Order: sequence, then structure tokens, then C-alpha cells
Amino acid sequence: MKPYTKLLGMAGVAALMLSAPAFAQDAPAAAPAADTAFIFNTLLFLIGGFLVMWMAAGFAMLEAGLVRSKNVSMQCLKNIALYAAAGIMYWLIGYNLMYTGVDGGFIGSFSLAYGFDPVGLEGADTAALLETGYSTASDWFFQMVFVATAASIVSGTLAERIKLWPFMIFVVILTGFIYPIAGSWQWGGGWLSEMGFSDFAGSTLVHSVGGWAALSGALILGARKGKFNADGSVTPMPGSSIPLATLGTFILWLGWFGFNGASQLAMGTIGDVSDVSRIFANTNLAAAAGVISTMILLQIIYKKVDVTMVLNGALAGLVAITAEPLAPSVLQTLFIGAVGGVIVVFTVPLLDKLKIDDVVGAIPVHLLAGIWGTFIVPLSNSETSFVTQIIGIVSYGAFTLVCSTIVWFILKATMGIRVTEEEEMIGLDKAEIGVEAYPEFGG
Amino acid sequence: MKPYTKLLGMAGVAALMLSAPAFAQDAPAAAPAADTAFIFNTLLFLIGGFLVMWMAAGFAMLEAGLVRSKNVSMQCLKNIALYAAAGIMYWLIGYNLMYTGVDGGFIGSFSLAYGFDPVGLEGADTAALLETGYSTASDWFFQMVFVATAASIVSGTLAERIKLWPFMIFVVILTGFIYPIAGSWQWGGGWLSEMGFSDFAGSTLVHSVGGWAALSGALILGARKGKFNADGSVTPMPGSSIPLATLGTFILWLGWFGFNGASQLAMGTIGDVSDVSRIFANTNLAAAAGVISTMILLQIIYKKVDVTMVLNGALAGLVAITAEPLAPSVLQTLFIGAVGGVIVVFTVPLLDKLKIDDVVGAIPVHLLAGIWGTFIVPLSNSETSFVTQIIGIVSYGAFTLVCSTIVWFILKATMGIRVTEEEEMIGLDKAEIGVEAYPEFGG
Amino acid sequence: MKPYTKLLGMAGVAALMLSAPAFAQDAPAAAPAADTAFIFNTLLFLIGGFLVMWMAAGFAMLEAGLVRSKNVSMQCLKNIALYAAAGIMYWLIGYNLMYTGVDGGFIGSFSLAYGFDPVGLEGADTAALLETGYSTASDWFFQMVFVATAASIVSGTLAERIKLWPFMIFVVILTGFIYPIAGSWQWGGGWLSEMGFSDFAGSTLVHSVGGWAALSGALILGARKGKFNADGSVTPMPGSSIPLATLGTFILWLGWFGFNGASQLAMGTIGDVSDVSRIFANTNLAAAAGVISTMILLQIIYKKVDVTMVLNGALAGLVAITAEPLAPSVLQTLFIGAVGGVIVVFTVPLLDKLKIDDVVGAIPVHLLAGIWGTFIVPLSNSETSFVTQIIGIVSYGAFTLVCSTIVWFILKATMGIRVTEEEEMIGLDKAEIGVEAYPEFGG
Repeated sequence: MKPYTKLLGMAGVAALMLSAPAFAQDAPAAAPAADTAFIFNTLLFLIGGFLVMWMAAGFAMLEAGLVRSKNVSMQCLKNIALYAAAGIMYWLIGYNLMYTGVDGGFIGSFSLAYGFDPVGLEGADTAALLETGYSTASDWFFQMVFVATAASIVSGTLAERIKLWPFMIFVVILTGFIYPIAGSWQWGGGWLSEMGFSDFAGSTLVHSVGGWAALSGALILGARKGKFNADGSVTPMPGSSIPLATLGTFILWLGWFGFNGASQLAMGTIGDVSDVSRIFANTNLAAAAGVISTMILLQIIYKKVDVTMVLNGALAGLVAITAEPLAPSVLQTLFIGAVGGVIVVFTVPLLDKLKIDDVVGAIPVHLLAGIWGTFIVPLSNSETSFVTQIIGIVSYGAFTLVCSTIVWFILKATMGIRVTEEEEMIGLDKAEIGVEAYPEFGG
Repeated sequence: MKPYTKLLGMAGVAALMLSAPAFAQDAPAAAPAADTAFIFNTLLFLIGGFLVMWMAAGFAMLEAGLVRSKNVSMQCLKNIALYAAAGIMYWLIGYNLMYTGVDGGFIGSFSLAYGFDPVGLEGADTAALLETGYSTASDWFFQMVFVATAASIVSGTLAERIKLWPFMIFVVILTGFIYPIAGSWQWGGGWLSEMGFSDFAGSTLVHSVGGWAALSGALILGARKGKFNADGSVTPMPGSSIPLATLGTFILWLGWFGFNGASQLAMGTIGDVSDVSRIFANTNLAAAAGVISTMILLQIIYKKVDVTMVLNGALAGLVAITAEPLAPSVLQTLFIGAVGGVIVVFTVPLLDKLKIDDVVGAIPVHLLAGIWGTFIVPLSNSETSFVTQIIGIVSYGAFTLVCSTIVWFILKATMGIRVTEEEEMIGLDKAEIGVEAYPEFGG
Repeated sequence: MKPYTKLLGMAGVAALMLSAPAFAQDAPAAAPAADTAFIFNTLLFLIGGFLVMWMAAGFAMLEAGLVRSKNVSMQCLKNIALYAAAGIMYWLIGYNLMYTGVDGGFIGSFSLAYGFDPVGLEGADTAALLETGYSTASDWFFQMVFVATAASIVSGTLAERIKLWPFMIFVVILTGFIYPIAGSWQWGGGWLSEMGFSDFAGSTLVHSVGGWAALSGALILGARKGKFNADGSVTPMPGSSIPLATLGTFILWLGWFGFNGASQLAMGTIGDVSDVSRIFANTNLAAAAGVISTMILLQIIYKKVDVTMVLNGALAGLVAITAEPLAPSVLQTLFIGAVGGVIVVFTVPLLDKLKIDDVVGAIPVHLLAGIWGTFIVPLSNSETSFVTQIIGIVSYGAFTLVCSTIVWFILKATMGIRVTEEEEMIGLDKAEIGVEAYPEFGG
């Protein structure tokens, strides 16, 4: 009988060694009992879920920091409102549309509203649930916070000029219909999953879908007044608060451990919890690589290390590793994340050249790094192919672009999506909210 | 033997299926072994506890964002100071007063200071603890963070005019005596719990108690200078930073998963962890409903969606669901949360009419939505009655109002509770702290 | 057969009692099965790890709030950059240098790069891992976030005048070499651990090491221009945002539950998880004592309660308890934490007298309170001695001071470590980053 051994000299060792006898008896066991595994799996969803929920705050802070002060209150409002709407829509329609009865197809069931397990399950009533392996409400909660992320991406790109209520209607349609239908193709067990497409935690399903919707909106909505000048120059419109943007990035980085880690969907075995750990480490290293590659490139090219680019570099590293955070070796992880940072450095100016006004840089970060991350999955995951990955990327792009464009055009034609020029000038906070973000600082 | 099945096409499925054999053998087991359950229960308290501790930061940010910049440092100081004082008082006196020897009565024991389990428990020494089902220190930690929440509510209402030290003395009495005695009636197993009153996670015991104490203080302290004018008009005194207030709200929302979820007090069985999951989902949906109902009402009534009202709408939804976050169906949850938002929209102006100066809107959010949430418990929980709920609500209101009023009057008569008019004008930061919150922005 | 009993009247009780039969059968078991314990231990590292990762955001906010607005962007950049660099270096070199083959000596192995467990472990392949007791990647993740903390301390002291890239090179050397070698002496099983030195979670190994490196840098770099005047007076340079500094402190306080709690390194037994709970409670109480002692002292000495001192008092309480958060009784804990606060109140002005410019007060908080906490371990832990603790403290001080000084001098002699006087005057944000933190507020 061998006791646990550890290199570390801390206090836990003694206690652990004393408990070792249990180990010898149970060594042959392959896994904890099903009920214990059930609790672990459910707990993973709950922890992962609250971490991803926290990302809503991250987007709110990132965007509040990157818009001008006259639009900060509006950006805060949109972010809390979209998170609320996403939750209700994903309960009302989205979840079943994504996960119920997809069966290799293109869409789930249109049954309204989703129910959770009854209160206080016990005895025989738990048998069915035991087969699922986790509680229904925990799964709903975890999936719900993902759809909110997709919506957050849109709010950043379209900031400072879109009207509140059309934006909210778009969010309702995105979270209730577009995202769930698209998601059903892969995570719902639809045609793309049968084809062998792979997107572990949503580089494409969440981030690119959000990015395509944002791109479509940016094209239809147009740039902010004064952003792109007749002489071809671009007017910088620096964000109002770098520390808030930094805070937002740190929040997102933290939340991403839940986003990727809990997408393992199970931690009730040694193998699963070890995989979750790998994902944590890889997620962190990809973000770190995004930071470092961005910093070095900026220093070389511009001789100044623009902190907002570095923040986006971290996020691009995170988005890039999201399609496959488990399989890559550390070197592969660093490569994948570093390229994410490179994408940010080169495509943020490119969007300016194309006169696409993406206020917070969400398109480079979520759409382009998302495509990159999804494309590169076969580098580390031998069960996937570049061809299938490209099919998936293109399919999601086409579907989301078409749907989003239709919705944006309908909204534009009916209620209008853009504030008046005067409202844009005085800022959305005064125009639509009546509450200035920093009333005492005369921003 | 049936393997685990999942709809989702992610990587966890394969690993999970491989572990399925263990399931077949253990299927009849009703629950994990007692020691495993013990660890799960304790872990729930630790996770729930750190999430609720984080709410102290949420209140600090919410209040820092909603006061004027000349009082922001003071608001930060009060919030970290009250959290510290609450922790010490609840160890010194509060916990035993609330939980030891209540036995159907009105108060626990006055024994000073509470001890934790000895270090490195093992073998036979764990038997007594196993019967409790969780570790002593984890329980203390989880209960302690609740009392801090009650104190945070008071600091928001009384901001911008109360002196630091009298406020601290009130916090000491609230957290060491008033809250624990009141809490003993229900969670300590006192007379109200025997009568069948129900308050799952503290709509009344925490939020209304804090709200009554705040109301009492607001009445005795009076309004800020210049708030209510002789001609009946109300001078708006907008908060200094909407993004900080938004951040605070997101922090509170996140922390509430611990507040309500871990109030299940156990997750060592399938039933318990499924219930915790239900609570997470319901808590989120109630807050979402509070956001949406507030937004729609504001748009209809005022044509502008005041973001501070929406933030309070989210919080009111959270407070409202706190009395019973487990039993309600999703539709009931949305109803309960939405009414919370409605309460905010209609009672914030009402307080102005009554010339009660509640700086951050804590009375509508915590007191009134807390009453609503407690009252409506019988809608979903058939083991409760409206009569008993009203008895509980009234008892808590009477006790807290009387005690708080006595304490406030004694403080007023002895050391005084209000800063001088001049100090109020230059701001508490310069007057009592000597540190301005934003020294470079000439707020 | 006795059921679980609880005083609390909440809903969890009923469900728990129903699961009691399992308890009677399993009562004699000393601990959960090894695989269940493995999952718990790994989960502790993951939760603790993400909490400590979050401390990077805490340092970023604390420092962003305490520097002047012209240097805020730079402080944000440095904090995210150092966290990224620390992660990569600790994977590339640091971990093995700290934990592999130390064997009572002074240094681990110089093998480049560290590998994680393979994906999807199962069956016989899990046997070796079971003996370790936790997954490799979770351990790496948890240890990595500690090294980042040490680097964060340096960035605060040297703010507002150090150049970006020399700072980054110092971080690379600190996190890849200095910290890991020093750490190997104790946590790697080196000579100090064999001698009986004790530092549970890093008052010395993390906080003092960071503090010594910061002190060395501050001496070599010199004070900010205009800080210390020829006539002996000190020019106050107040921080730009007290709420951000407060937020940072709350984040650090929250993260510290992971820092200390997960340093138990195991929660797979009743004894371990109870110990983790004790650590949570003690950690919170020490911080609370630091807050209260600081407040009272400031009121007595200065008649004004400087909030930045109180924030540092909380942190000093946390640093002080970190060397031994498990063994102390609550009274001992309050004493240890309170003295931390006292240290802050008396040594912050002392540093000014010595003309050492420590922008955020990191030397009192991390170095001096770290020494205090390490020294006082024998008060509660009878297996340690004051002599050995002093040997450890002095050894870490000497090693870190010597190494850091050499590195700083080389950096100074080669690329220079200080911005020009003009750059310092206009601020690092404009000079090195090109992005102002608050462009609209003309700070």
C-alpha cells in the first residue's frame, strides 16, 4: 500500500496521508458512484455557469470603458438588458430549439418553454436523471449564459449610434432563434456534428455567430458620424476609461475558465476532472500568448504599446483556444493564442480601411479569432479535418449573416435602428436614458 | 446497463460513457456516503460564502456609483468597514445569539465567541461532525456574510450625511444584536419557524431587516440639504458613476447565486444538488424579469429608460425571489421578479413625495421588494400561509424599527449622527477622510 | 441510526434527512474513495486557482486607483502583461525549477517546459495520478497564479516612473528564476523545509519575495520627481480613483480565500475540508482585524480615517495571516491581523522619512506584514520555532535582495530602467502607450 505523495511541504500532506488506507481498498474502482458523479457534473455546470454569467459584467465594463463618456450609461443599460432578455428567451424558446429532437437535422423543436426537475427529487424518481448525469436546471443555466455572450458581442460593435429598442428586439431574435438554430447543428446533435465538425466551447457557435451578427449590423447601421472622413483619414474616438476596459478584460479572462472548462460537461471521473484542469491551463496560456504577441508586435510596428490592443489580444487568444482547449499541447496552445493576438494587430486597422466602424474591436476578436480557432482544431485534434471545419465556419457565417441581415433590414425599415444625428452628437445617455454616466465630470 | 446519454455533442460525453460501468453497480444507492456528502455540503457553504462575501464589493460599487463624487471615498470606507465589523461581531456575539439554544423562543444564547472545529480532524473525532453534515467554520462563514449584507443596505440609504463613527456603532449593534436576535426567530429555530413562517434565503430576515433599519435611520437623520425644496420640488442629485453602479449590480447578481443557492444548505444528494440548480435558474430569471419589467414601464411612463432604475429593478427581482427561490415554476418566478421591478418604478418617486431621502433606492429594493417576496411565498409553496407570512413580515418590521429607532436616537442624543452643514456641503471625503475620490477631476 | 440534524429551518434539512440511511451504513469509513478524493482535491486547485488568478485583476484595480491619472493606462498594461508573462515563464522554466528534484537542496531541475496529463485518462493509466492525489494541470495552474502575485507587488511600488520593457524583463526573471528557486527551498521540499521552516500559503515565499524585489527596485530606481523636497517635506501625490482602489482591495480579499484556502492542497477528507473552512474563516477575520485596527489608530493619531490606509490595513491583515491561516484560534487570528494594520499605519510614513517612494504602499503591506506573519507562526503552530522562522525570513530577504539588485543594476546599466524626466512629467500613458486612461476628463 502506497500513500499519497506530494512534493509540496504544506500542511495538507499530513491529513492526506492519514486518509490513504481508503485508497488501497478502492484502487480498482474506475470511477466514483453514479450519484457522486452526478453531483460533480452538476456542480461543474453551476460553477462554470456563474463564471460565464460574470462575463456579462466583463462585456459591460469592457464596452463602458471603450465608448465615449456620453454613451457609457447606454452601454451599461444595453449589457444588463441583453443579459436579462437572453435568459428569458432561451428559457421560452431557445433551449428546446437547440437541444430537443434535432436528431441530425437543422433545427430542434418549437415547443414553448422548458421545465426543470421537480423539487426534492429522491429515491426512484432520480433514476432517469442519473442516466442524464447532471441536473436539468444546471444544464439550462450553463447553456443560457453562453447565448448571452453572443449577444454581448453585438452590443460592443454597434455602440454609440444604435437605438435601444431595435437593439433589444434584435437581441430577442438572436437569442431566441438565430443562435439556438445555429447551435442545434452542432451541440444539439445536428447535421454538422454528424459530419464531424468540432467546436468544443464555441469559437464559432458563440463568438463567430455573435461576430457575424455584429458585422451585419455594422454594415447596415453605418459608422459613427465623424469617424471616417472624406479625405480618407480616420478620427480616433478613444474610450472613456481604460481601467474599466481592463477590468472587463480580466473579468472575461476569469469567466473563460468556466466557458471552456465546464464545456467538458463532466468532472465525475479522474479523466474528466483532469481534462478540465488541462483546459484551465491551456485557456490561461492562450490568453497569455495573445497578450505577449500583441505587445511585441505593437512595439515593433508602432513603438507604442496601445493597451486597448493588448486587451483585445488577450481576448483574441481566449476566443482562438475556445474551439479546442483540451487537445493542444502547451506549445500548440501558445501558437494558437499568439496568432489570435496577431490577428487583432493587423485587422483592427484593416476594418478602419474598409470603413467598418466596430467600436470595441469585437469583429477582430470574436469573429476573426473565432474563425482562426475553429480552423486550426485539426492541428491538435486528429479526429477532425480542415475541410469539415471550413464547411462549419462557412455554414455558420452564411446562416448568421443572412438571418441577421434580414432582421436588421426589417428593423431599419419599420422602426429605424439609428438615433438622429443630433442625438448621436449629444450622446445616447442624454437622448435615450436621461442619465449621464459621469454627470460631475463634464465629459 | 444503460450508459449516460446526452444530447450535446461535446467532448465530455465520450469520457462519461466510459465511466458508465460504475453506474450499473451503484444504481440502487440513494445517496453518496456520508463523508462525501459532508464534503459537498461544506464546499457549498464555502463557494456560497465567497460569492456572498463578494456582494460586499457589489454594494460598495453600487453605492460609490450612486453618491456624488465628494462622498465616494466615504462610501467606499463605510462598506469595507462595515463588512469587517460585521464579521467580528458575528463571531463575538451574533452567531450564538442566532443559532444556539433558541429552541422555539425569541433569542439564542449570550455566550461570547464561537469556536471552530479543531485542526486536522480524523477518525472517531469526525463522528459528531458527520451528524451535523458540514464543517462548523464553513457554516459560520456562510452565515456571517449574510449579516454583512443587511448592514450594507443601511449604508446606502444614509449616504452623504451620516457621520462615520455613529454609523459604525450602529453597524456593530445591528450585526451583533438586532439581526441575530431577529434571525433566531426563524433560522435559529425560534417561534416564527415553529409557527410555519417561511423565508428561504432572507427576503425578510436579511433584506427587509436591513431595509427597516435604513428607513428608521433615514427618518431620524433627515434628508440631504437641498434635496427637498420648500416649493415641493425635488432636486435631482445624480450619482457620480453609472458604470460603477452597473458593476455593483452585476456583482450582486453574481453573488446572489451563492446567497440563494447555498441556502439550500446541502448538495450531497441528487435531490439537493438539483434543487440548488433550480435555485440558480430561478434566481437568474427573477432578476431578468425585474430588468425587463422596469425597462418597459419606464419607457411607457417616462419615455426614457433610466438606467439606475433598471439596476434597482434587477436587484428588486433578486430580493423578491429570495424568500422562495426553489418552489416557484418559471412562470411564477418571472411574475415574482417582474413585480419587484414594478415596485421600484412606483415607490422610488413615492419616497420622494414622502420626503424620505434614500440615496441609492435601498428601501424600495430591499425593504419593499423583500416584503413582496416574503408575502408571495404561499403562491408556490403550499406548506405556507399568507397569514403566517404577514405575521412574520410585521414582526420583523416592528422589532427592527423599534430597536433601530432606539439606537439611532441614543446615538443622536449622545455623539450626534449627522455631519455639520458645512461638512455636508464640502463632502464627507474632505471632512472626515481627508482623501478625495477623484482628486484630479475637480468633481 | 441518527439522522443529520441542523438548527436551521431551511428547506435543505428535509432532503438531507431523507438521505440519512446511507450514513448509517458508511459511518465507519474514514474517507471517501481515492478517486472521489482526487476529484475534490483537483477541484480545490481549480477553484482556488481561479480565485487567485482574479487577484491579478485586484492588483490592477488597486494600482490603477492609486496612481495619478496620467499613468493609469500604463499600470493597467503592466498588470495584464505581467500576469501573461508569469504564466508562460512558470510553464517554460519556473515550475520544474521549484518542484522537480529539489530533494532537500537549494534548487530544482533546469529542464525546460512542463507537461500536463494526457487527455481522457482512464483505467490503469489513472493509477499513478491517483497516488499524487490531484491532476497535474490543476496543480500547475494553482502554483502559477501565485508567482503572478509576487510580480504584481513589484509593479505597484515602482509605478509612475519605470519603463515598460525593463520592467517586463525583470518580471520574466523574477517569475522564471528568482521566485521558483526561492520557492524550492520550502514548498519544493528544499533545505528550509527540512529545517522546519513553515510558511503555509506564502507570507514570505510570495509576499515578502515580491516585497524585497520591489524594495530593491525602489532604491535603485529612485523616487518620483517632486515627491521628496529639498526642505524635507513630502509632496502628496493622491491616487486617481478611490473606488477602483477599493474594488481592487475587495477583489484581493475575495481571491485570498483561494490563496490560503486552497493551499491546504486537499479537501478529499472531512478533516481537510474542515481545515479549508477554518482557513476561510480565519482569513476573513484577519483582514477584518486589519481594517478595524487601522481605522481606530488613524482616528486617534490623525483624526481622519484615510481610506487608502484602511484598504492597505485589510491587505496587511491578509498578508499576515497567510503564513499560518489554519492553526490560530480566532483571538490569535484577530491579533495577527490587527498587528498587520498597525504596521501599515506606522511604516507608510516611515518609508517617506527614508525617502523610499513606494507608490501604492506595497512594501509595508507585502514585505513588512509578510515578515510579521511569518515570524509569528510559532504562536499558534507548536511544530515551528522562532529561530527557524527568522532564519527563513532572513534567507529569503538576502537571496531576493541580492538577485533583484543584480538584475536591476544590469538593466539600469544596459537599457536604462527609468523614463526621462519629461516623459515622467507628461505621464507614461502618453509617453509609452499613446492611450490616455481618461481622455475626456483632462486629468
